[in-house]
Formats: sequence, C-alpha cells, structure tokens
Amino acid sequence: METNVDKKISRRELGKGLAAVAVASIAGGNAGAAQSTTHHAGEWTRVAPGIWKTVIGEPEAITPVKSRLVAAKEGEAFAGACPLPAIEGTVRNRGVELALPLLADEELFGFGLQFFSLAQRNHKVTIRVNADPKADSGDSHAPVPFYVSTRGYGVLVDTARYATFYCGQCHKKPTEAMAPLENQGKPVELAPVATPPKSEVLVEVPTARGVEVYVFAGPTVLDVVRRYNMFSGGGVMPPEWGLGFLYRTESNATSEDVLKTVREFREREIPCDILGLEPGWHTHAYSCTYAWNHARFPDPKGFVSEMGALNMRVNLWEHAFVHPSSPLFTPMKDHAGDYGVWGGLVPDFQSAEARKIFGGYHGRELVEIGISGFKLDECDNSDFSGSWSFPEVSQFGSGVDGEQMHNLFGLRYQKTIWEQYQTRGKETYGLVRSSGALAAPYPFVLYSDLYNHRQFVRALVTSGFSGVLWCPEVRDAVSEEDLIRRLQVVVFSPLAMINGWYIKNPPWKQMDHEKNNRGELAENWHALESRCREIIGWRMQMVPYLQAAFAKYAMDGTPPFRALAMDWPEVKAFAHVDDAWMVGDRVLVAPLFAGEKGRKLTLPEGEWHDFWTGARVAGGKPMEIPASTRNIPMFVKSGTVLPLATVTGSTAEAKRRQLTVNVYGDGREKFEAKTPGGELLRCIWNGSSGQVESTGFTPKFDVVNWKQFA
Amino acid sequence: METNVDKKISRRELGKGLAAVAVASIAGGNAGAAQSTTHHAGEWTRVAPGIWKTVIGEPEAITPVKSRLVAAKEGEAFAGACPLPAIEGTVRNRGVELALPLLADEELFGFGLQFFSLAQRNHKVTIRVNADPKADSGDSHAPVPFYVSTRGYGVLVDTARYATFYCGQCHKKPTEAMAPLENQGKPVELAPVATPPKSEVLVEVPTARGVEVYVFAGPTVLDVVRRYNMFSGGGVMPPEWGLGFLYRTESNATSEDVLKTVREFREREIPCDILGLEPGWHTHAYSCTYAWNHARFPDPKGFVSEMGALNMRVNLWEHAFVHPSSPLFTPMKDHAGDYGVWGGLVPDFQSAEARKIFGGYHGRELVEIGISGFKLDECDNSDFSGSWSFPEVSQFGSGVDGEQMHNLFGLRYQKTIWEQYQTRGKETYGLVRSSGALAAPYPFVLYSDLYNHRQFVRALVTSGFSGVLWCPEVRDAVSEEDLIRRLQVVVFSPLAMINGWYIKNPPWKQMDHEKNNRGELAENWHALESRCREIIGWRMQMVPYLQAAFAKYAMDGTPPFRALAMDWPEVKAFAHVDDAWMVGDRVLVAPLFAGEKGRKLTLPEGEWHDFWTGARVAGGKPMEIPASTRNIPMFVKSGTVLPLATVTGSTAEAKRRQLTVNVYGDGREKFEAKTPGGELLRCIWNGSSGQVESTGFTPKFDVVNWKQFA
Repeated sequence: METNVDKKISRRELGKGLAAVAVASIAGGNAGAAQSTTHHAGEWTRVAPGIWKTVIGEPEAITPVKSRLVAAKEGEAFAGACPLPAIEGTVRNRGVELALPLLADEELFGFGLQFFSLAQRNHKVTIRVNADPKADSGDSHAPVPFYVSTRGYGVLVDTARYATFYCGQCHKKPTEAMAPLENQGKPVELAPVATPPKSEVLVEVPTARGVEVYVFAGPTVLDVVRRYNMFSGGGVMPPEWGLGFLYRTESNATSEDVLKTVREFREREIPCDILGLEPGWHTHAYSCTYAWNHARFPDPKGFVSEMGALNMRVNLWEHAFVHPSSPLFTPMKDHAGDYGVWGGLVPDFQSAEARKIFGGYHGRELVEIGISGFKLDECDNSDFSGSWSFPEVSQFGSGVDGEQMHNLFGLRYQKTIWEQYQTRGKETYGLVRSSGALAAPYPFVLYSDLYNHRQFVRALVTSGFSGVLWCPEVRDAVSEEDLIRRLQVVVFSPLAMINGWYIKNPPWKQMDHEKNNRGELAENWHALESRCREIIGWRMQMVPYLQAAFAKYAMDGTPPFRALAMDWPEVKAFAHVDDAWMVGDRVLVAPLFAGEKGRKLTLPEGEWHDFWTGARVAGGKPMEIPASTRNIPMFVKSGTVLPLATVTGSTAEAKRRQLTVNVYGDGREKFEAKTPGGELLRCIWNGSSGQVESTGFTPKFDVVNWKQFA
Repeated sequence: METNVDKKISRRELGKGLAAVAVASIAGGNAGAAQSTTHHAGEWTRVAPGIWKTVIGEPEAITPVKSRLVAAKEGEAFAGACPLPAIEGTVRNRGVELALPLLADEELFGFGLQFFSLAQRNHKVTIRVNADPKADSGDSHAPVPFYVSTRGYGVLVDTARYATFYCGQCHKKPTEAMAPLENQGKPVELAPVATPPKSEVLVEVPTARGVEVYVFAGPTVLDVVRRYNMFSGGGVMPPEWGLGFLYRTESNATSEDVLKTVREFREREIPCDILGLEPGWHTHAYSCTYAWNHARFPDPKGFVSEMGALNMRVNLWEHAFVHPSSPLFTPMKDHAGDYGVWGGLVPDFQSAEARKIFGGYHGRELVEIGISGFKLDECDNSDFSGSWSFPEVSQFGSGVDGEQMHNLFGLRYQKTIWEQYQTRGKETYGLVRSSGALAAPYPFVLYSDLYNHRQFVRALVTSGFSGVLWCPEVRDAVSEEDLIRRLQVVVFSPLAMINGWYIKNPPWKQMDHEKNNRGELAENWHALESRCREIIGWRMQMVPYLQAAFAKYAMDGTPPFRALAMDWPEVKAFAHVDDAWMVGDRVLVAPLFAGEKGRKLTLPEGEWHDFWTGARVAGGKPMEIPASTRNIPMFVKSGTVLPLATVTGSTAEAKRRQLTVNVYGDGREKFEAKTPGGELLRCIWNGSSGQVESTGFTPKFDVVNWKQFA
C-alpha cells in the first residue's frame, strides 16, 4: 500500500496529544457513591509485533480472545512504541468503564458489519447482535468491539457483552462560568457547542468486573486492519468454486425440481457453481431436524452425486434450534441452554462437547455425502421486529449467559460446522447470519433478510474494517433496473448469490412473485436473462483476480473488499463514501442504484482507467455518472495487470483457465496470486509483451490474449 | 364501570392456574455456573387495599417508589387475596431475574407511553427512555415498568434501571423427544410452534442485586389502573385554563410579535388560553440560561402582565442543561453529573438540594412574575437518532448513575418546577418530553418531536394504562386534510396545542414553511382558519366534560383518556384497537387519518349516539366510516347527559359557563364533575326536564338550553 498516514503525523506528537487526553479523563473523575468502584491504570504490554494488551480489573473467563478457536498468526514487524498512552479503567457495580483518548482530527471506523453508517465518530455504538436494526445504534448481524482510527491504530475490547462505545460525543461537565450574555442579541439556537479539541472514546462493558483491551499499531489504517486480521488467524482463502456463482432454489423444491433447474442453467449457460437448498429439505423446519425429507429427496446421496456430475455443489440451509423429532435432540438435550427457540433446543456452542455432537452429526450425515457448505440462519437475535430468540438471561452449561451467547453464537456455530470440513481435509464456503470478533479466518459470508440496497452496499463497505465478509444477496427487485443494479453489485462481493427461496423460477424469468410461482413468465424474459447471464459472467471473469485478493487476505490480512477510507484515510471526504469500494488493491467499484438520478464519484488522486472502455480517467476530480450508464461503474488503477478468466458454466471447467489479460497504462504493477496452499499465478507486462507463470493450479492458467489500454 | 372481568373468572381458578405456572418456572431451573446466583421466593405482603409487595434480594436505594416525591393515596377497598401466587426471583451477577406467571388467555397492556403497539403479549419491552424510538422495543419518552393483565391485576417492578420484560414469548427448552417425522410429507415451514398454554413474564433488572415488586388487584382492568394511579398519588386535576387551547409562537418572536399574534387571535376569535414561548426568550439556548433575552423581551414582567390583561397565560420552553453563562451555573456546578450536555451542566434532580436551587431560581424569577407553566424539553435521551445526552455511565452526587437518571430525569425535573407552584399555592399545567413511573399526579403532559399521526394516536391510546398524559401536538401538515385531522385529534387529548415554533404565522394561514415565514399567505386561508376555529371551539365546549373526567382521575384514579381495551377487556378484538379511545366514561372518539380510505369501527355493545347528529348507532356491529366524513367520528353512550360550554376566546370569559346540555336517549346517567377543590357541577335529566347544580365555580355554571336526542 502506498498511502501511509504515519508520514504525516509525528508519533511523538500523537503520543503527547493522546497522553494529555488520558490524563484529563482521569482528572475528570466522578462524583457518585458506588462503594465498590475501583480505578485501574491500564499500562500496555506487548503481546505480538505491533500489538499490546492491558488488563483492567478481573476480566471474564469467556471472551472472544480467551475462548478463541483459531490460533493467531503473526503480522508484520513493528518496531515502534504502543500508539496509545496508558488508559484509565473503572470497575463499578454496573460493569467496566474505559476512557480511551481521541484527538480532534481522528475519525473512527469499524464495529463490524454496519448498515447505517461508515464513519463512527460521535456515534453511540452498542455491540449487540440483532437481525433487524432499524436505526444507527450499532446493532447488527455481526457487531465487533473493534474500531480503527485514522491516526493509525485500532482498539479491540475483548468482551462478548453488549459493550457500548461513545465515540467522542461525551464530554465532562463544564467547570468555568461565563459572563452573562445579556443583550448580546440573537441567541445561537439549536446549535450545539463546538466539539472540544480533545475528547475520549468512552466504553462501557456491562456486568463484567474487568476486561482486557488490545491495541493494534499501523502505521497505516490498512496496516491496523491487517494486523487485526492476522491476530484473528489470517483471512479466509475460499475454494475456487466458492468464488463462482450460487443460486438458492425455492424452499419446497424436490430433488427433481432442483436437478431440472440445474440442467436448465447448464443448457442456457447460466454460470453456477453452488446450488442452495432452503428449509424444505428437512422433515421439519422451524425448529430444524437436519434429517432429509424423503418425500422430496428420496435419495440424498444419489442427488448430491448427480449434482456433482453436473459440476454443481450443494449447500444446505439450516438454523441451530433442534426440533424434538430431530436425531440430534436426544444427544443435544443436555448441551443446550435453559430456554428453547421455536420449540427447539439452543445448542451450547460455547461447549466443545456440544460442538462435537452437533457438528459430528453434520459431518457423518451430510459432509460425508458431499454437501459443500451450509447456510446458518437465525443465529443472531431480534429486538426490533418480533422477539423470537432466547432471552439474555438464558444460562448455558459452558458458563455463558444469553447476552454473551448472542454475541458468540454465530461464530461458534460456524466453527461447529467448519470443523467437520477441517478434520476431513475438505474445503467449505458457506453463509451465516451472524458473526463477531476474530472472524477473518472463518469460511462463511454474512447475509441478511433486510433488503435496502444502499444499506446492503454500505454493509459491504463497512465489513472490511472488522474481518467479516458480506453478501449483498439478490432476492427480488422492484424493476428490471433494480434487478440489474443489485446483480451488478453482488458479483463484486465476497459471495455472488441469488436467493430464490420463495420463487420457483429465477427472477429474470418473472419478477412478480405470484406469477413466477404460477409459472407465468414475463414476455421479455430472454432479454433479461441474457443481461443477467452477462453480469454473472463478469464474476466468472474476475475469479483469478479475486483469488489474488483473497490470497493476500490469508497471507497478510489485507481485506479483499474495503472502503476508500481504508486505503486513503488522509482524504477526509472518503470517511463518508459508503457507496463505493475497492475490490483488491487495483479495482474500484461505484455502483448505481435503481430509481436514483445517477451518482457522484471522486476517484482517489492518480491515474485510473474505466474498466469497460479502458479510457483514462483522472482521479481527484468530481464526476457525475448518469443513471443510464449500462454497466456498473468500475475503475482500474493505471499500471494494473488484470487477468480475466474465460466465462464457463462453472469453475470446474478447464477452459476458464484461458486468460485474457488487460494491461492498463504502463502495466508496471505485476499481477500475482500466491495462495496459502502454494499455488501461484503471476502475469507480468514488460512494456511490450507479457509473460504468465502458473504453478500448482490444475489445470494451469494460460494467457490467450494480452490487451493494452494506454 | 359496568364491565367486570372478575365475574367471568373464578378467583380460585385464576390462583390455581397461576400457581402452577410459578412452580413450573421454578422447576425449569437453570444450568450455568454463576457462583453468586441466589434464588428467592417472593411472597406477597399486603401494603394497602388491593396492593401487595414482595422483596427479592437486596433492592437498590433509589427507585421510583422509594424516592417518590408525592405520597400515595388510598384506592378502593379490596377484600380478596393477592391475585398472584408467590413469584420466583433469581439474583445473578448480571442483575435480577423474575418469572411472573402468565396464562394462555391473558393479554397485557401498559409499559408507559408506547408509539408502536398497544397489546404487549409476546413483546420484548425494555424500559429505556428514548426520544426517537424506531421500532417496537419499549423505548419511549415515558416507559413505565408497569403492566396490566386482562385477568384483572397489574405488576409494578420498582426500578429505575432499563428493565426488560419478555411478555410470554420465552419458553423453557423442550425436554421430550418426538418420533422422527420421516416421510410425513410437507414440513411446517416458517410456522413457529403453537404457544404453550402456560407461560411467564420474564423480567430482567440489570445491575441490581434485588428489587421490589408490587401487585395491584382489580377486580377489573380499569380498577387495576385506578389503584395504580391512586398509589401514584392520584391523577392530576389541571386548572380550567389548562384545558383551553395552547399556541406556541415562533422561536425568535419578540414580545411585540407575540402580543400581535395574541391580539389577532382575540380579534379573529381564535380561542386560546396559553401562549408558549420557544428557545428565543433565553440569552442562549442549547444549552440554556433561563435568563430573558432583553433584546427580544425588554420588559418580561410587563409583557406577562400585558398578556394577562388579554386573558393569556405564558408558558416557557427550556431544557435542563445549564449553560456556563446562566445565573444558575455557579450555584448548580456542584449539583450536576460528571458529564455535560451541549456544553451545559446536567442537574442532579435526584438531589433535593439541586431541585431547590434550580427550582428556586425559576420560582423567584419566573413563577413570581406570572409564568403559568413550562415546556421541559430534551429530558429524555436518544440512542436512535444522534446521541446527544449524558452517557449511562454518568455519576451523580445523589448516588444514581446515568442509566437510572435517564429513567428518573423527566419526573424529577417536573417536580423541581411543580414545587415552585405548590409552595406558592399556584396552579400549573405544562409540557414535558419525559416521564416515568408514578406520574399520575404531575401537572405535565408529554409531547414528542416525532410526528407520525397513527403513532401519535396510538400513544394517546396506550398512555392511560400507565398514569401518563399525552399531547398529540399539531405542528404542520402535508395537506389541509392532514391539518384538520390532526387538529381534530389534539382537541380530544389532555392538552390541545398547536406548536408553531418554526413558523411565523399559524399553519392555517400557510402550510408551506418557507412561504409562511416570508409572510406569503395561502389564498384560501380564511376558509381554513374558519375550519380550525370551529375545531378549537369543540375543545372549548368540552371543557366542563373534561373537568369531570379529570376530577375522577384526581379522586379515584380513573384515567380521563383510555383504550377501549381498558373499559372492555373481555372484547378480544379491542386489544388491538389502537386508533380509538374513550374521553371520560361516555364519549368514544375514532379519528380519521389524512390520506387513508376511511376507517372501520366496531362500537362496544350497547346503544350509542353519533355526537354530531344525535342519531342512534348500535354497538357490536362493524361500521365503515368514509374518509369524506367532515368531523371527527365521535359517539356518546345512550343515557348520557353531556354539558357543552359556550365557545369563548378563553376560559377566563364568564360567558362560557352558559351551558347547552345534550341529553342522549333517556338521559338516565347524570353528569357530575366533583373536583378535589370541592367544586361541583351536576346536570340531571328527569325524563322531561333537566336541572343544574353548580357550587364552588365562580361564576357558576348555568344551562341555557337542554337538547334531547331520542
């Protein structure tokens, strides 16, 4: 990464400024009577290169870090001192309170997947897992108690509690009287006072008697995130087929229906690698049995194998709540929380034994017959639309209560399933509706039942700050434009998926649900299908580039999808650009939204190329992109060497290894995908001709065409 | 009240059913490891007629009941046993957990002012004060930890904490395996299991090591609410002028502007008793100084007295956060929380000394010169749109933290101001943006910056269950229809108000804000003004009836405004009627909403009359009321004697005591207003002629016209 905020800020100055704030926050003191209040000075102890920890009071036994199930990996070396001075912690009856320094020019990002905002300064953020946030409160499918500052450091508060972060808007009470303003005329109405130059991030961890806090050094913002991701265990490297296309069929589809859909996809050349089954494969759903409904799937093993012969992997929907008729009920009965959900058990996934029983069944019965992955539904919670999950007061044998379990449940559920692939040396890449801290290595992508397209894009932009992956899935659309714009976005996300769980035919055949399910297809469906086929084709072309981006995620923690503010934190305006993102290091995507009048975009400084035409575009200047623009606006940094695969029906087809390599400008930046498995694809442009190196990939990559865009 | 659910339910049966649930919930037990967990059996001790209390663990020192500032009044006698069996409480590190029995047929109401729902069964309700709730989570300007069951009892959990109530949707885990459902065909998808016949209300009180719980007996639902209101100190009896009309002028208006508006109201015969000033009267607002801006109000005392000569009372806007330039800053500095808001102090209103200083200033400087009341703004909190208030971790010298203070702040602020009127033997009736438990005697009406009309009406319907009053204020409108429909609602609420804080002219002159402030009046404004004048006139006519309703509130706790479900709990459908309400015992209002296609309404069983025509309408039958209906649909119980005052410019005019008395059907139910001050108005119809009795009112009431509607 070329940007380095550290260059602009003297570390001594930063340390000095922050230290002064920390002292002020201690001096601010507290009135009040709570007898058991204790104050703690949080000195930093180095625990890894560029990572420090402090212990305030007596931390809880079960936290994201302490009960981690994936070992940390070491990040980049870092010779400097801890970027933060000692912090002050206070333990009271109500929990732990931390005051972390915050300077006037700092912006904050992170806190996991966020639908409502990117920049978090002056926000009150509660790390509380919820499926249906209605406001910018922090609630999310995947809230993470981790934030990153534009000053080039990050803070992880290691708790599974519903911690609250007040990001700079709380100020100690004023102490100096001012002269009366009598007769000075017009009062300043409804205008809050100016933000003081120094502030604090105030954190409250409820219930706990102590907490551990980690600080991650940069020097750059991207370095901070890399370090956090490596500390999490490194980013996930999905299997190649996971980067293809995923289509989920209607919930009540039978094996015959599904095979018919797949054969039609193959016939009509709709690329697809994974086929997802929704609740109907269970004998009972809500709660679940994890037992095949033989009326619909008389021969599950045969079905999966027939799908395999069509180069199609099978992904299964489920949630974790075990119905009394499930074969898992009796073995899980004593490994569940004291409250049920939808008449089913809530597995105590914090317990290794519970994971072993629940996962073991999945391994033997489902992974063994070839199921490639799962969609783990309903593992979040809901305070804002209905209230269906287990209460926060629930108790689990592992020692956590319902509050902690809500924040841990998604990640522990993922590990329960993932373990079954790991022990068999198999790869998986699935979906999950909840995640949390230290999620980077987990082969699961988040999704939601919400559907606001701007929120979906914002979630993608925010996700990269906290080691979570997000799928802005396509279900239906209000117009052809909406379908196209949504599909154009999802193919540039971690998981390219259409979720047709309530429609019998793909949405391009008929967008009206009822007509779709009655089989009344739209008149122009061939044209729309063709448009969608083309867009899915883009995804297939991008697979090698995505592999390179994910390989970096695995090797050094660089998020494959990230906000402009992560790469260019020094550009203040980018702190609020929540509708454009980087795919890897070289490609910038800035989608259009149906029903809007085009969009504005200012590319980062430097030379860029329009992906679709190859034409040069100068950064740093505001552009207007009209709504009529056919393809998704996409820009490539000048100097890029960008290999594009041949579009095939699935990633299993050898033909896709035949590359067209686009060279932008002088092509000085070589393309390199170097996976943790030791595979290598390298494309180098020497100014007039190119060379390709492919090792470990079977069959190997080859270039059939070099295309230069001056 | 004629309805009595008790008649239908044998108390023994109720006791038996509930006892069984309580035992089951104990047996449900808990897994989990928290060492400090203690279990408590909550036996009930009688504390007043029909009121019992239990103590679980070691309750906190500062709670709504323990730190109450208004003494309880004794309600109706009650000879029966406690309607609930002993409950089970558990004290854990995270707080107190209570399991209260709940039978299959019970519906629950209450929890304070609620914008999103009336019936609360299966809801998760958090008692957390917030100005901008976006979802049905319990958050509200005035959440109250009190619920009422259709089985004829109520429960108050005496805490200022953000308690969470799970109202029946949480169920202990299943324990019995079922046979596999193999090949039974279609699974029941997305359909939660049926609700078990017995359930519980699960309550969590965070942080506390104990809590006191009160049970209020009925026998009827209305009796429960009455008993709770009397326990709160009895309902407020507003001054007569408080039941007139209130108009708030534009924020930057000068005394000249205000007087001009008032003179025009008098000239144009717009009834108005109270004129509200918005922030501009302060020398600085946000935060506040409570000091007159002499550039706008050069002679405050003279201004108030000139207003008085026009029969107009003055109400002043403020919030509680003390600006450093305020004369209150130095005296309040050591009686404030450790955090500030908008650069001002947060008064520790839980401390008597703080109330004395803050209130004393208001008394000397403002009440003494004749200010009739205040509008206490911003005393709630906001987690859902911005985050501007003090953090929950704040500490106050009185011993409460920020969480408790948020739930207590509004009510303590009210008392701070009210006290100044009480010690001077003066009446007041004002506005406040937050309230809480035991609020019935406080002379303040809630309002909001939100503006959804259905939510505003729903809030009015819910408010009566918890001893709070609500003003669905009119600010602006999207259409004439909207303005009219909103005004038609507010005149049948506790406080009839138009809040023109951002418009220089009344909304009927011009609904477009910008044009309004430029003085460009609408072409048809005379016609719309005339329509609005007529509607405000309805309010003036209803004052004697409202006095009777409020007098009952004060004397026996009967809420003057209430849900149909409160008077007819046995009608299951009424549990969801959140768009119609009773005004007093005899009048039912069912408003129309702008932009909707009319409405449905089923009147309660019995004979009714259309208020506008006097025509008989049979209850128990669904009606369609078309959107074109001119006036607000309003129905009077047959047998009612309903006195209507003469419309005057203010309640100070003697002429308004000249009544027209409407007699509906046989007029067998006499009208009686018997105030706590000993005044009496009685109108009796003997079948062919009427008689009126008026004592204590000066001048006295007299009837000029009896009108019978057969």
